[in-house]
Amino acid sequence: MFVKLDWLESKTRETIAHLPDEEIDIVVDALLWAETTGNSDMGIIKLAGTEPIQDVAPSGEINTTVNKCAASIHGHGHAAPYTTLLGVNKAIELAKHHGVGITGVTGIRTSTLCQTYYLEKIAAADLIGFMCSRSPAVQTGFNSIEPLFGTNPFGFSFPSNEDPFLFDPSTSSMTWYDLIVKNIQGVRLPELTALDDLGNYTCIPQKAMEGALLLRDRSQTNSMMAMTVELLAGPLVGAAFMSLEIEEDWGTFIMTIDPDILCGTQVFKQSVSDAVKIIKESKAAYGTQVRLPGEDSLRKRKEALEIKRVDIDERLLKHVGFM
Amino acid sequence: MFVKLDWLESKTRETIAHLPDEEIDIVVDALLWAETTGNSDMGIIKLAGTEPIQDVAPSGEINTTVNKCAASIHGHGHAAPYTTLLGVNKAIELAKHHGVGITGVTGIRTSTLCQTYYLEKIAAADLIGFMCSRSPAVQTGFNSIEPLFGTNPFGFSFPSNEDPFLFDPSTSSMTWYDLIVKNIQGVRLPELTALDDLGNYTCIPQKAMEGALLLRDRSQTNSMMAMTVELLAGPLVGAAFMSLEIEEDWGTFIMTIDPDILCGTQVFKQSVSDAVKIIKESKAAYGTQVRLPGEDSLRKRKEALEIKRVDIDERLLKHVGFM
Repeated sequence: MFVKLDWLESKTRETIAHLPDEEIDIVVDALLWAETTGNSDMGIIKLAGTEPIQDVAPSGEINTTVNKCAASIHGHGHAAPYTTLLGVNKAIELAKHHGVGITGVTGIRTSTLCQTYYLEKIAAADLIGFMCSRSPAVQTGFNSIEPLFGTNPFGFSFPSNEDPFLFDPSTSSMTWYDLIVKNIQGVRLPELTALDDLGNYTCIPQKAMEGALLLRDRSQTNSMMAMTVELLAGPLVGAAFMSLEIEEDWGTFIMTIDPDILCGTQVFKQSVSDAVKIIKESKAAYGTQVRLPGEDSLRKRKEALEIKRVDIDERLLKHVGFM
Repeated sequence: MFVKLDWLESKTRETIAHLPDEEIDIVVDALLWAETTGNSDMGIIKLAGTEPIQDVAPSGEINTTVNKCAASIHGHGHAAPYTTLLGVNKAIELAKHHGVGITGVTGIRTSTLCQTYYLEKIAAADLIGFMCSRSPAVQTGFNSIEPLFGTNPFGFSFPSNEDPFLFDPSTSSMTWYDLIVKNIQGVRLPELTALDDLGNYTCIPQKAMEGALLLRDRSQTNSMMAMTVELLAGPLVGAAFMSLEIEEDWGTFIMTIDPDILCGTQVFKQSVSDAVKIIKESKAAYGTQVRLPGEDSLRKRKEALEIKRVDIDERLLKHVGFM
């Protein structure tokens, strides 16, 4: 059903009212980014489920240490999107000075929500962005039937003279909150996307939650991308990895590159615009269309902001107590 | 058939005898790396085909310019593996100083051969490595039926306390020289891996060479990884991209990260060792084995160096004039 963005924002603010003011603004902004770009698994459902985004338990001030072009940020339990945005801003600042900036984020207790939310800001600063996150193990590796990796999303962003080119796939067949959404909706999972706790294929969301998600395409290459994310966003930034259980379950690795250290910003932005144009004008297979991934999301967002409304599944609105 | 490594080396040296001495050593080393790790599409066949590795036409000295933590290297037509190795060494040097090093390589006329050849050297220097390369368009994008991208390989390497963790998949269903090898062998291509020049599926190598290779898994995510490689190893480093025809057809992007700027080198190396152990000891699906990608290649290489012989298809040996 279509709901007004104003109403959605005030309902969200009520739910997270116990957070510090500056954190509320960022969490609301990131949740509405998800809903308006059509990512229902990263939107208001994150106020419920296994790791509600508002479950913060600050144990101290957010702490930043810088070493050359890299920063380590420990969130000490503050809201994940707030801490992550600090990390993104720091990486932008570092890249403007050093040409490259890296931030490792730990000390958060939930996911960071859509990575494109942050990647878009990196592109807006005329930088190339890469980020990835690890989380508690729920995904198998190649040929394995037990959880080894988080859903381990990674994403890139490239500035252009039009909309930036953004994408942020998870390495798993679906995200963890996709599973939670499908469980609430009572929807059958696609075939070959999950295992139950005995290692047998299942299409039942609840059984998959007790078992494991499979890799997006079940290939060795896919498994190694999950492993790469696990290493960059895990031990490298001081977070846990694989099935190890330490307090720092969640970790994010953020990298920014200033095109000025190589071809120059203007040349690069125009090249990205040109590349997008070449793809969109290329010959499509019969009955299909050649599209870019971020395209649909950005179009949906522009529409939602224009009509000041967004389409959300009524079951999700009820589940989080908005109705 | 098994051939002696000594014989293989001297035959290779004869074929590329017109190159400068220091370039011969590197090209031979990289070709033998490919053969001993079992990558026949990156080995001696590269002395033939559409872009023979020894086809160099130096138009001047190799030129390096440094800007902050980044270097741009123009090969001016010198042998690609030699120029690329200079780039890798420069990226290692930059990372040791700045924490991160980036090198863009252009001015080469052929592929760089196996990326693991270089990634292994980055790991040996206790750095995390990422590299990717673009080449003339032979691969379609998502839903498209005309060549948009090169085969666009990318690879990561992570140092550990045992063998490094290395992988370097191409984003395409196979490499261009895979196609050349299969054409020589008269082998049928796997289904759904290539199109002919009309955009119809084909399993005939020659027809695919006139048409296009498909994406590795034909997904949008895969297409966007190909696009990412195209942008990093193309315009960012000053090389061509997509179907644009400029002289700098080939480009490589190399990045090195010193774990010392985040968690510390020793902690990181031990974590990579631990992660590899957890994967290898994880429960496998019935009748399968959990493996890491570089594992087989490194085992093959160790065996070959021990017995001082390597197994090469006789048809390839004949094709390059070694027999």
